[in-house]
Amino acid sequence: MNRVILSVDAMGGDHGPRVTLPASLSALSRYPDLSIRLHAELDVLQPILDKLSLSDELLSRLEIVASGASVAMDEKPSSAVRHRQGSSMSQAIKCVAQGRAHACVSAGNTGALMAFGRQQLKMLPGIDRPAIITSVPTSGGHCYMLDLGANVDSSAEHLLQFAIMGSVLAEAVDDIKSPAVALLNNGEEVIKGNEQVRLANELIAANNSINYIGYVEGGGVFSGRADVVVCDGFVGNVALKSNEGLAKLIGRKVRRSFMKNMYRRLVAMLAAPILREIEEEMDPSRRNGATLIGLQGIVLKSHGSANAKCFGYALDQAVIEVRKNVPELIAERLKSYRKY
Amino acid sequence: MNRVILSVDAMGGDHGPRVTLPASLSALSRYPDLSIRLHAELDVLQPILDKLSLSDELLSRLEIVASGASVAMDEKPSSAVRHRQGSSMSQAIKCVAQGRAHACVSAGNTGALMAFGRQQLKMLPGIDRPAIITSVPTSGGHCYMLDLGANVDSSAEHLLQFAIMGSVLAEAVDDIKSPAVALLNNGEEVIKGNEQVRLANELIAANNSINYIGYVEGGGVFSGRADVVVCDGFVGNVALKSNEGLAKLIGRKVRRSFMKNMYRRLVAMLAAPILREIEEEMDPSRRNGATLIGLQGIVLKSHGSANAKCFGYALDQAVIEVRKNVPELIAERLKSYRKY
Repeated sequence: MNRVILSVDAMGGDHGPRVTLPASLSALSRYPDLSIRLHAELDVLQPILDKLSLSDELLSRLEIVASGASVAMDEKPSSAVRHRQGSSMSQAIKCVAQGRAHACVSAGNTGALMAFGRQQLKMLPGIDRPAIITSVPTSGGHCYMLDLGANVDSSAEHLLQFAIMGSVLAEAVDDIKSPAVALLNNGEEVIKGNEQVRLANELIAANNSINYIGYVEGGGVFSGRADVVVCDGFVGNVALKSNEGLAKLIGRKVRRSFMKNMYRRLVAMLAAPILREIEEEMDPSRRNGATLIGLQGIVLKSHGSANAKCFGYALDQAVIEVRKNVPELIAERLKSYRKY
Repeated sequence: MNRVILSVDAMGGDHGPRVTLPASLSALSRYPDLSIRLHAELDVLQPILDKLSLSDELLSRLEIVASGASVAMDEKPSSAVRHRQGSSMSQAIKCVAQGRAHACVSAGNTGALMAFGRQQLKMLPGIDRPAIITSVPTSGGHCYMLDLGANVDSSAEHLLQFAIMGSVLAEAVDDIKSPAVALLNNGEEVIKGNEQVRLANELIAANNSINYIGYVEGGGVFSGRADVVVCDGFVGNVALKSNEGLAKLIGRKVRRSFMKNMYRRLVAMLAAPILREIEEEMDPSRRNGATLIGLQGIVLKSHGSANAKCFGYALDQAVIEVRKNVPELIAERLKSYRKY
């Protein structure tokens, strides 16, 4: 196995280096063939680094790269591209563009990450805009869903591109032959849908290289019928975050319900390992690490609120995609997919 | 308490009279002051009715009304309005328009129900289109969410109207003084959102009669921060159905996990009443019965797939709204809400 080099935007996310540094160190321990370039503002990183005692072996695989002022979480992407070329985020992506890292991982401003990605890595041929894709648990396994927030007001042509990219990713990563692709809609009848979705339905159905199974409703995402579910980024983002909110709410209700009296607390002790198993299986942070798909390079987006453990999952996902060589597989298969 | 008369579209939904008839009979037993006008194609209803033996008292409060060909679940609303004026759905709404019933309940084609509603009941002054509103469980209780599928491609002005109607409903039904209204978005930062949402944000913020708390993300729906969450019907429908799908998936995972071995089955027996309590609390069918708000009359929409128990919840909801006199309360309060 060849070495894997990740370039990490240490400043991104709600917690910055307090999360990204320990997560990076832990990943270096997990993967002996991993090196990390950690991009950070030194005056923020150094005090945290000074408190740790690291082995020489670990330090030999960790390169600290000084960066300029960081991108704010609420900064406009256009402003970030204009004023934050020296930021940890920009520098981390530049490393991938220059071949000095295999993938970039950031928990920072999604819009800015996308803008830097487009500017420095460029899009795959035939793809206009990157999309955010992640896996979602289903009854029998998982499916991929995109876009999850990179694009709002997507056109039908963009939805077609999402369908192609999602299909190729599922094929490449999971070895599924002609993955079943569905279009998210507010009903499965042909009369349903907003304008962009009805147009996309025709476009995707007309593309022979996609195994298109038609519309799926919100609940159908979890049924396992589709390997890939396509939607506009606004819709996908709301659905995904809504699901995470509901899962948390159910978790809270379960804990509250098991705490009501002494007898229930006793049952809770017996049931705890079982409930923990379910909670872990459904935990959205286990699927932290969404891919910015469509770029000529691997960029992973972590939740801004991720803790070190969750940020670690995004690093894991980056390692997997590097080893699978995902963007090249996509570029290769895109050629046949676009012949329509 | 005055008598309540409901007019029920017996033919609507995936199961027609096999669900709507038993649900209606059960509601008549639950509410001694309730009468039901059951609109149905007699050749479908009669064989089911013949198998039952009903008390004279019950029959005295059940009026069977013969209707013509029914609206198909995938029929276009425009076609329904042109060709299905004699349908059970159209007749049921007509009863409300003519004052022969206080509310209509249907599990049929949503678009057609909306079209008949607009045609026969007319809109409240200042409201362009009906919206679908229902309650969603939150950490501390519930909030209202609209629109859930009546309108796709809603304009900013429509989102403002949803905000007003939702606010008034929460105030009227739950006695909340100036309910907190939020706009669903793909992020809480001001730079987020698609065009319609950013415009609506300005419109709603400028309306002094609404206690507007700004953007809320998908997960924020369940936090309890907002009493009313406003969104386009496409987005709301996908989020709602997605949540229902996830809740079902979690339920299945819990059952499977507790069945893995003998020890776990034993724990499951002890935990069963607790888990059942949570399941019932979270069960979306308990909130079956979404209101078509904005009409000059009460129209309740049940899930098409509802069984008799679930359809019964929609009947319950109709009885509550009749007793609360919701549309008149809304019309009354709309007057002050529109002064902006």
